[in-house]
Amino acid sequence: MSPALHRHPHFVSLEGGEGAGKTTAINAIREALQARGHEVVLTREPGGTALAERIRALVLKPDAEIAAEPLSAEAELLLVFAARAQHVRQVIAPALQRGAYVLCDRFTDSSYAYQGGGRGLDPAWIADLERRAVGLLPGLTLLLDVDVAVGRARANGRDLWPDRIESEHDDFFQRVRAVFRQRASEDPARYRLIDASQDQAGVAGAVVAAVNAWLAQEPDCG
Amino acid sequence: MSPALHRHPHFVSLEGGEGAGKTTAINAIREALQARGHEVVLTREPGGTALAERIRALVLKPDAEIAAEPLSAEAELLLVFAARAQHVRQVIAPALQRGAYVLCDRFTDSSYAYQGGGRGLDPAWIADLERRAVGLLPGLTLLLDVDVAVGRARANGRDLWPDRIESEHDDFFQRVRAVFRQRASEDPARYRLIDASQDQAGVAGAVVAAVNAWLAQEPDCG
Ligand SMILES: Nc1ncnc2c1ncn2[C@@H]1O[C@H](COP(=O)(O)OP(=O)(O)OP(=O)(O)O)[C@@H](O)[C@H]1O
Ligand SMILES: Nc1ncnc2c1ncn2[C@@H]1O[C@H](COP(=O)(O)OP(=O)(O)OP(=O)(O)O)[C@@H](O)[C@H]1O
Ligand SMILES: [Mg+2]
Ligand SMILES: [Mg+2]
Repeated sequence: MSPALHRHPHFVSLEGGEGAGKTTAINAIREALQARGHEVVLTREPGGTALAERIRALVLKPDAEIAAEPLSAEAELLLVFAARAQHVRQVIAPALQRGAYVLCDRFTDSSYAYQGGGRGLDPAWIADLERRAVGLLPGLTLLLDVDVAVGRARANGRDLWPDRIESEHDDFFQRVRAVFRQRASEDPARYRLIDASQDQAGVAGAVVAAVNAWLAQEPDCG
Repeated sequence: MSPALHRHPHFVSLEGGEGAGKTTAINAIREALQARGHEVVLTREPGGTALAERIRALVLKPDAEIAAEPLSAEAELLLVFAARAQHVRQVIAPALQRGAYVLCDRFTDSSYAYQGGGRGLDPAWIADLERRAVGLLPGLTLLLDVDVAVGRARANGRDLWPDRIESEHDDFFQRVRAVFRQRASEDPARYRLIDASQDQAGVAGAVVAAVNAWLAQEPDCG
């Protein structure tokens, strides 16, 4: 039996496909929490530590020598979980331990969606890695959901050079979206589905409302 | 159920602790195989591809920025398996496919010994990664076995700057050696235990004799 998975109420993740608006919306949440006097640690995946950011670069922005070598789906999965193992131990768990809120731009759900749905790897393998290498689950996950075409158009407007994953085809991102929606529907206690087709103010309002409702229901934050 | 593990008769690995003499002895095997007219691919782990060598550097020779961050045992395991997934797909499997012999300086046995025995990670996890990310087992593994103190003295004579793993303590390497010996005793069809306390000529003679005996028993190499 692999070890258990703990939910932490101060750990909040934002998930969604390319260009859904996660990185934009997370700042609205940070401001709302800071206005209430909470310490907030804002971080992202893959990445969040010096080593994890190096791993991120190998996966998403390989230099010419590395880019010539096709990255297997298996290696991609193991690299993102190696980064996550570091991120949890070096940054997320210590911050939660001292009472801070942690806002994370993508977390393990993205592995189920991208390496599971997108690349076709066995979700049972991902679940085993989650238990063995991570051990931690957000208390609240905001899923920013939007049509693949709309999200990609937004991301294209932002990026001059798409990264390795942004260069995938639409059917890849349709599978990613389907896994995110499926997981959210199976665990309504953790996920809030946010309509990310709204404008930025609308998305910011929806995510802040979801976080405020979450804080209100917590015994230690009433 | 995780996928199956295939043994390939042309795939030969050398295993053993620090300074046992693997890198020295492997060249004697290469020469013996080449003298018989075989194509030989000589490679090593962690490493063997451009990406895998980058991963090796993160694990064994971290620069100052990365070295300041303690590497968790879990991340170490996932990184070496990410490198191995690449190595198998890019180098080892294609070479075996075209009929070459592959000589590998360390392979998955080293993960059982170092990350399992040394770091204390669950061998069931390592076995699962082996099936899911590697899928391939050497037909023949030469275990160069020598007292930890003797091996370390040899390695110290060679290295001005020990790498991250060479800097571990003796009890770590005693656990590494115990796992290697245990695995060899459980699978005599694959392993040959080589007394690596002999001088270089003695070890070279023993490994070449073991490989010749292995070739003689193979139906397609008689
Ligand atoms: N609700 C919105 N409506 C229109 N454009 C938006 C909205 N939210 C963000 N954008 C813009 O769309 C682009 C992508 O937004 P953002 O970078 O926040 O997405 P993301 O979900 O973090 O994407 P990625 O998955 O690539 O990290 C940015 O240029 C941003 O300014
Ligand atoms: N049988 C031997 N007797 C004495 N010295 C040896 C013998 N074999 C190798 N050496 C020397 O010991 C040192 C370590 O040998 P080598 O690098 O081959 O070990 P290794 O098993 O590859 O070590 P590592 O695990 O660190 O890669 C080298 O300086 C080598 O010349
Ligand atoms: Mg973003
Ligand atoms: Mg060596």
